Amino acid sequence: MAEIAALAGVSKPTVSKVMNGQPGVAATTRERVERVIAERGYVRHGAARALSAGRSGSVNLVVKEVDNPYHAEIIRGVEETLERAGLSMVLTATHDEERRHRRWMARVLEHGTDGAILVLPDEHFTHLAELHNRGIPVALVDDRGEIPVGVASVGATNFAGGFAATEHLLSLGHRRIAIIGGPSFKSTRERVAGYRTALQEAGVAVDPRLHQAGGFVAETGYEAAKNLLRLDEPPTAIFAGNDLQAMGVYRALYEAGLRTPDDVSVIGFDDLPLSRLLTPALTTVRQPVREMGALATRMLLQTIAGEKLESSRVELATSLVVRESSGPPKI
Amino acid sequence: MAEIAALAGVSKPTVSKVMNGQPGVAATTRERVERVIAERGYVRHGAARALSAGRSGSVNLVVKEVDNPYHAEIIRGVEETLERAGLSMVLTATHDEERRHRRWMARVLEHGTDGAILVLPDEHFTHLAELHNRGIPVALVDDRGEIPVGVASVGATNFAGGFAATEHLLSLGHRRIAIIGGPSFKSTRERVAGYRTALQEAGVAVDPRLHQAGGFVAETGYEAAKNLLRLDEPPTAIFAGNDLQAMGVYRALYEAGLRTPDDVSVIGFDDLPLSRLLTPALTTVRQPVREMGALATRMLLQTIAGEKLESSRVELATSLVVRESSGPPKI
Repeated sequence: MAEIAALAGVSKPTVSKVMNGQPGVAATTRERVERVIAERGYVRHGAARALSAGRSGSVNLVVKEVDNPYHAEIIRGVEETLERAGLSMVLTATHDEERRHRRWMARVLEHGTDGAILVLPDEHFTHLAELHNRGIPVALVDDRGEIPVGVASVGATNFAGGFAATEHLLSLGHRRIAIIGGPSFKSTRERVAGYRTALQEAGVAVDPRLHQAGGFVAETGYEAAKNLLRLDEPPTAIFAGNDLQAMGVYRALYEAGLRTPDDVSVIGFDDLPLSRLLTPALTTVRQPVREMGALATRMLLQTIAGEKLESSRVELATSLVVRESSGPPKI
Repeated sequence: MAEIAALAGVSKPTVSKVMNGQPGVAATTRERVERVIAERGYVRHGAARALSAGRSGSVNLVVKEVDNPYHAEIIRGVEETLERAGLSMVLTATHDEERRHRRWMARVLEHGTDGAILVLPDEHFTHLAELHNRGIPVALVDDRGEIPVGVASVGATNFAGGFAATEHLLSLGHRRIAIIGGPSFKSTRERVAGYRTALQEAGVAVDPRLHQAGGFVAETGYEAAKNLLRLDEPPTAIFAGNDLQAMGVYRALYEAGLRTPDDVSVIGFDDLPLSRLLTPALTTVRQPVREMGALATRMLLQTIAGEKLESSRVELATSLVVRESSGPPKI
């Protein structure tokens, strides 16, 4: 800190104020100090400062696929948070393959890591306990439902999201509302429960033929929508399990010569950056995906620094974003 | 190798054959040997084996944004290639900010790296020479045009791509063909040159009003298309600078009540995974983006291993992918 103060030509308390985001420093002075800090590569984050010599200077992020836009948002949130803390992000894609998990674990044990963030760890992830036993701090994003004690985890309010999407469609006048689920994760089950509860509260019977399932990919949305359109009494609205599925629904409707929302309303889940660009722009339930990645990272840094977490499980709020793909049903 | 042979219960020559992908090994034996290799975390790649103890075991990949689908494909190609070589990928986003470049460089110098892959390094990247001087091997993907001697670089045949897209539209009968450029990179200039050459060879005058420019983002496509539609004689086809721009063009056409391709044909560039999912599915010039990342990685691994590159600059072929967004002009 003395070095920064000398380089910036200010007092040590001033540097301290800037580093801790406290008031009482002129804007130009603050800027000068921040420039010195940035140039010198100093880190401001308390937890990161605690990582003195001997640490690897990096955190491992493990996702299923790096080129999935949902994961890309998490990757961004994690990278930005680590970067501010002066740490590097080691990124690994598992493709749900056991051998990739094993090789990742072998690399971690050989080269070390300050901690690991796992996104939706799959059934192969028997290494979670091993990481924990070896004292490597771990945080989870969007876990599948079973969290070991002492592991930080960040999710979203999926039940509320499923409820809000369905309530929106009901308020537009829809009664034949289909839902496309996803893999049997905790998040999927909660979204479906929100959908069912909204229907029941509105006195609309739950029709099991209107519930399709599959993976969180466009192909599932496409196949599910084709199945739904073949029903004797097809739905007037389709609530897709995520935005990628919604793109598949768009495609099935397009091929059937149907218009959105005139003929069929569509709602997604996630609010990926591309969803507002679709034509029509997608009505969707926003998950703050990037923030989920950032928060899991901050919780991991706290764990690394030996700080106690106020809560090891945090759910961030979902919110309905109404755009162009939802409207009243055709009479 | 003796250890693997013992664990798998086979001879050393058999292990060697499996590791080098040679024939003459029964499928079940091959599988058993591969399982042992995977479990032990052994690496097969010649270059990676040359990275004996003392190396960091990781390679740095530097991109502008991690959540851009074009970069996501490169990230995937790099990660998969490094993973097979037993190396970790450290991923950094610069957002074209000088201070992030500096902090990245500081982390690299503190914690070490076996090499670095830079995607479209921007003007802030004065560190390229520094990396080179410090003996850190570097490879570039999609450089902006100036490559230091001895630095491996992978691009695509952009001129051919621009030519093929324009020729396709001409063959459908279009004469008023607009182009949306991008930032003043070498790749952009080559695509525009391909467009101009195709028009000239067909005897169609190049109209400067049909050339728009901007960033490689959807907003540019949206604004450019709105400008083009306002012309006294608007184009019947728009060749967007990349697929994200094409999404913006779709939106402008949608808002104007125009249909693709009935009223206006649209072509993109890149062939992102999402482009085939759009409605209508996007006709585009495919760049093998993932393969470009993979090849740059292989060239970097060769450099790390002290092997000589046959050519330090390689361009992979682009190809036209005709889908639903291009058709004959309205009479």
